[in-house]
Amino acid sequence: MECESLRSRILDPYEVVEKYIPKTGIIAFAGMAGTSLPKEVPKALHDYISKTGEKFSLVVFQAGSTTPEFDEWISSVTMVMRIPFGGSSRKLREAVNTRKFGLFDMGLYEHSRWVRKGIYLRSIGRIDVAIIEAAGITREGYIIPSLSVDVVPAFIESCNKLIVEVNLLRPNLTGLHDIYLPATGQPIPISRVLDRIGHPFIKCPESKIEAIVLSKSEDATPLYSGITQTDLRIAENILDFLNYEFSRDPNLKDEYTVFQPGAGPMSSALARKISELPTSLNIWAEALSTTWIPLALSGIVKGVSSSVLYTLPGEAEYRSKLYEEIEEVKKCVVLRPYEVTNNPEIISRFNTVSIQQAIEIDVYGHVNVSHIRGNMYGGVGGSIEFTRSAYLTILAMPSTTGDLKTPRIVPIISHVDIPEHDVDVIVTENGWIDLRGLPPVERAKAIIDKCSHPKFKDLLYRYLEKAKRQGGHEPIDFEAAIEFWNDVKDIAAQY
Amino acid sequence: MECESLRSRILDPYEVVEKYIPKTGIIAFAGMAGTSLPKEVPKALHDYISKTGEKFSLVVFQAGSTTPEFDEWISSVTMVMRIPFGGSSRKLREAVNTRKFGLFDMGLYEHSRWVRKGIYLRSIGRIDVAIIEAAGITREGYIIPSLSVDVVPAFIESCNKLIVEVNLLRPNLTGLHDIYLPATGQPIPISRVLDRIGHPFIKCPESKIEAIVLSKSEDATPLYSGITQTDLRIAENILDFLNYEFSRDPNLKDEYTVFQPGAGPMSSALARKISELPTSLNIWAEALSTTWIPLALSGIVKGVSSSVLYTLPGEAEYRSKLYEEIEEVKKCVVLRPYEVTNNPEIISRFNTVSIQQAIEIDVYGHVNVSHIRGNMYGGVGGSIEFTRSAYLTILAMPSTTGDLKTPRIVPIISHVDIPEHDVDVIVTENGWIDLRGLPPVERAKAIIDKCSHPKFKDLLYRYLEKAKRQGGHEPIDFEAAIEFWNDVKDIAAQY
Repeated sequence: MECESLRSRILDPYEVVEKYIPKTGIIAFAGMAGTSLPKEVPKALHDYISKTGEKFSLVVFQAGSTTPEFDEWISSVTMVMRIPFGGSSRKLREAVNTRKFGLFDMGLYEHSRWVRKGIYLRSIGRIDVAIIEAAGITREGYIIPSLSVDVVPAFIESCNKLIVEVNLLRPNLTGLHDIYLPATGQPIPISRVLDRIGHPFIKCPESKIEAIVLSKSEDATPLYSGITQTDLRIAENILDFLNYEFSRDPNLKDEYTVFQPGAGPMSSALARKISELPTSLNIWAEALSTTWIPLALSGIVKGVSSSVLYTLPGEAEYRSKLYEEIEEVKKCVVLRPYEVTNNPEIISRFNTVSIQQAIEIDVYGHVNVSHIRGNMYGGVGGSIEFTRSAYLTILAMPSTTGDLKTPRIVPIISHVDIPEHDVDVIVTENGWIDLRGLPPVERAKAIIDKCSHPKFKDLLYRYLEKAKRQGGHEPIDFEAAIEFWNDVKDIAAQY
Repeated sequence: MECESLRSRILDPYEVVEKYIPKTGIIAFAGMAGTSLPKEVPKALHDYISKTGEKFSLVVFQAGSTTPEFDEWISSVTMVMRIPFGGSSRKLREAVNTRKFGLFDMGLYEHSRWVRKGIYLRSIGRIDVAIIEAAGITREGYIIPSLSVDVVPAFIESCNKLIVEVNLLRPNLTGLHDIYLPATGQPIPISRVLDRIGHPFIKCPESKIEAIVLSKSEDATPLYSGITQTDLRIAENILDFLNYEFSRDPNLKDEYTVFQPGAGPMSSALARKISELPTSLNIWAEALSTTWIPLALSGIVKGVSSSVLYTLPGEAEYRSKLYEEIEEVKKCVVLRPYEVTNNPEIISRFNTVSIQQAIEIDVYGHVNVSHIRGNMYGGVGGSIEFTRSAYLTILAMPSTTGDLKTPRIVPIISHVDIPEHDVDVIVTENGWIDLRGLPPVERAKAIIDKCSHPKFKDLLYRYLEKAKRQGGHEPIDFEAAIEFWNDVKDIAAQY
């Protein structure tokens, strides 16, 4: 906090809640992948409501996925609406699935674009207060973002008033960020992962900054599980496919090939294997775990562009590494707004190899990432933005649930987020299949053969045969799908 | 045909078939929206097979939708595979839906990209012969494209041998086209609809040009129906929404707003109404009917960029207008490869307002454009490319089939091509609804209320109530959906 003129606005978080959080209106919290979410103000808000019993009826805008801790804090708010999903606690999911409040989920590039272009303003209203975490404020009053840039610049641009939590635990992050927001009609002048085309800070009129809170809280661990044996096998199969593909596709060897390595434990498992590739990769991601930092520092990965650097459970050592070697990190890592990282313009410009995860995939390759039989499980995040524009889209998931009782390759999925047209390769712990150029029935056979779990393979073939009797280019049979699920129950009961 | 050195390669189409069409292998026909498809060689191929009984087993690449005439000609080929769909005859659809051969459908930008990047080459093989229509060949041997640029430059770049049908009916089209193919890693330097960033011709090594055929055949009429009263009502409702939106969204008034006005009779109906908008629009389309040419010439539409100019049944007068005033047309119209018109980079750069059509839409806004219960009805074309990256995506369709017996707004669709996340506004003959910011159940109520046919409204509400009892953020109920269709049959039987 080097800005003299703003020093008088440093307040206790409880006071901030009393003075500046409206009882009704629209509030926005930045931070995603559990990283650089505001912590002091949400906690104080929770305390304030517990103590006073006052009611806050708010529309809550977010940037992406939060932490259970954060969700607990803001669960005392009477939610009017929440945009986008980004919740990570069972409690929040329950509230969403019992429709206690409205939830509007959407892609993240578009979310930022809508914030800036006034789409929400006209349909829902103006953001009264945005609350962001920063790594610092410069002498000139410029905001140094923290470890997640996400939608921060768009919130700052569009809100009435801003509250900044300066996190004193962060090292000097000045120079890590590249703050640029696309201008309508103008090309985004990025040709390399490490290109810097904007400013290192976010400029915000001082008059907008209502209060500053000093924080010494580290991010809570995001709700990811540890790496399982299945994750490792999936990572091996991804590597097996990539090695094959790198040997036959000369485009992947060019300097414009970028890699988006998925999220969570699978991405971490992949980080352990990636040095086996013959080429050192550029990373162009929406969210990257700090697992990848040592790889960037050692040159196994060439350059990294991401919107957030998050740390997985049990991997605090990588965050420490990031903090300790921050000056070296700045040479090989750039953090950007997700309106840039997830921008179709850039994703389509590069030879982007994108790895995405799924809840379930049907035999033709349609993908569900969000809902199980109507119940929200996860937000779509950037998955729909990367898969459409990528050069090569890989969908990776275990072929069953963890208890092996429920197949995840199924006849018909209950929600389609990513259509078959966007899916090039499917990888499970059982193998991989390249679907490019295969007609639907061939695709179904190949997916069942290479990727499904042996326990459910026969049932899936049986479904396909029944569906084929219905005829058509891409045969489906709703009744046979219901039979499939009955048979699955019988099989599961045997274990 | 001004090129002296190529004059010796002018051949009779029958001779071309005898000499240059392989009995097995991969053949590519350019031309889309029924426009500038090769006509002489396909016809000669048909005649040759009828006469000799010889067998041609071919993989057929196309650019987009053909004509019934073209499909009839190549129906004598033993099809191994066809990519992408683009068929427009009942006969071809039947062949696809009885799986007589494999069909791989996909988006068009990506199709061109895959041709150029060797994805098909590695999965299927190299194109032996590409057959294209041209408006002429210059003295230097450069190819002047015809009225559809589509995937022509990519086919020329990637094929072993090229056969050019020079259509002598076309006026002098030199200067109408802008031939540019994106370079990996480099921004596409387009900021205005009329920007020209490439060449007016396609350069092709003379050694690649195997034969030239002179043609005097006009395009057959594509398989579109005429404008119905329903189309006109839908167009009125689109205009009603656009007028409302232009009055409240200042972004739409800026110079970077572009309009993609759908296809077929609905687009033609829209052309009749578009002068009612307060602003004159720029058009950025994949395919535009010549209905729009007089609007461009009179300045009602500012500038036009498209990949093809096609002519609807009963609208030959507009093609004549295009021919007669071609020099004026060149000042306000640019034809480009669809790797540019459908490029996510450009669609997302502009404030693109995209209108797309559908077969059916579910109550939450998921869209089916391709399959009815497993049977292929239409290709996805550029719909998935425009809807994802557009600033504002409008889905327009009649609320029922033409006989009023089958609703097109339904509980669950049998194929999802465009996920709900990409759909902003739905328009039918009954009204329009802006879905942006609405949670799923609110969305369902609004779609049923504003857009569904009065005949089926109660059934849809009844479905929604049943589904809601299942719980969840976006409730679905497969059994209630089956009941819905049974009830629909009962209602239909009453008429």
